[in-house]
Amino acid sequence: MEQQKKRGVLLVLSGPSGTGKGTVCAVVRDHLGDSVCYSISATTRQPRPGEVHGREYFFFSKEEFAALREQDGFLEWAQVYDNFYGTPRKFVEEVLDSGKDCILEIDPQGALQVRNATDEAVLVFIAPPSLEELRSRLTGRGTESEEEVEKRLGCAAAELAYRDKYDYIIVNDDVEKAAMKMEAILLAEKCRSVRSLSDK
Amino acid sequence: MEQQKKRGVLLVLSGPSGTGKGTVCAVVRDHLGDSVCYSISATTRQPRPGEVHGREYFFFSKEEFAALREQDGFLEWAQVYDNFYGTPRKFVEEVLDSGKDCILEIDPQGALQVRNATDEAVLVFIAPPSLEELRSRLTGRGTESEEEVEKRLGCAAAELAYRDKYDYIIVNDDVEKAAMKMEAILLAEKCRSVRSLSDK
Repeated sequence: MEQQKKRGVLLVLSGPSGTGKGTVCAVVRDHLGDSVCYSISATTRQPRPGEVHGREYFFFSKEEFAALREQDGFLEWAQVYDNFYGTPRKFVEEVLDSGKDCILEIDPQGALQVRNATDEAVLVFIAPPSLEELRSRLTGRGTESEEEVEKRLGCAAAELAYRDKYDYIIVNDDVEKAAMKMEAILLAEKCRSVRSLSDK
Repeated sequence: MEQQKKRGVLLVLSGPSGTGKGTVCAVVRDHLGDSVCYSISATTRQPRPGEVHGREYFFFSKEEFAALREQDGFLEWAQVYDNFYGTPRKFVEEVLDSGKDCILEIDPQGALQVRNATDEAVLVFIAPPSLEELRSRLTGRGTESEEEVEKRLGCAAAELAYRDKYDYIIVNDDVEKAAMKMEAILLAEKCRSVRSLSDK
């Protein structure tokens, strides 16, 4: 009876490299406009020319990053070579509080960290129609060596084994249909009774 | 990786009298056409002129009804005065097996029976924007006495207390928006990982 919950949905989108997560997100963004917001990562690497703090990344010093990590300030974080990357919890909280949905496009390890860091994450796995199709997409890009393609396919097979940790699986055989499914998930999740009842 | 499950979704739609369940269903039916099927109840009452077995109802004798009930052949059933009403499990199974979604519009007691009879039911509660709004709709119909309206409002208040037993709550403040939410729930439910993984 109370008004349905105004808090946004935290949708974590993940899946193997080459499954078209970015393209699906671009279509969703195009359809939904300002009602969704993409999470911005923090990093300790140096800004590249043209990158703006708070737009491409939040640029933190290693000390700032470590201090925030100590305070449980990241939904997930990872070290890549000498640098740290993470999703600041505060940014995501502010987006959700404002009533916007927050989409976090992230690798599968990060997605499972988010699952443990908050109980309100909705995990969506974008799967390729088949490993053969994924091979053809990765080869078609022309940016990876044959060895690199094989390595990514090996990773993909391993990541697919974790898809039962996700709430939803979208097989991306058609970008428009995959985007429609993602939009349906956002709308349906807003109607979940646990969500509207916890907002009393 | 396997193709997403083709089995239809069993959506159980319930909520207090006067919340507009039937109208929302009509709009969904208009949008989705043949991909959804409405469940047909069995009854032991006599057919009225123009009613066809298998269209408005399945008309059973009391002996047939009792025999099917003994075989766990109903997803839910109830006695109303001298007659029995129920949802034949076999009809619903055949719809879902054919890949169509099956919508079951039913009173809240029946909805909770379906919840216990099968683990694949998705329960949706259609709620009025407020009890005041519900009173105004019931009065506006002009078909119920003041006493009857008060009785229905009392029932509605009791039924609202059970809405946390449902998976989803749709506040019907706008029929088109409520129908869109129901359609989003059908599409999202098809993507649930439990659904595609159990279909291997």
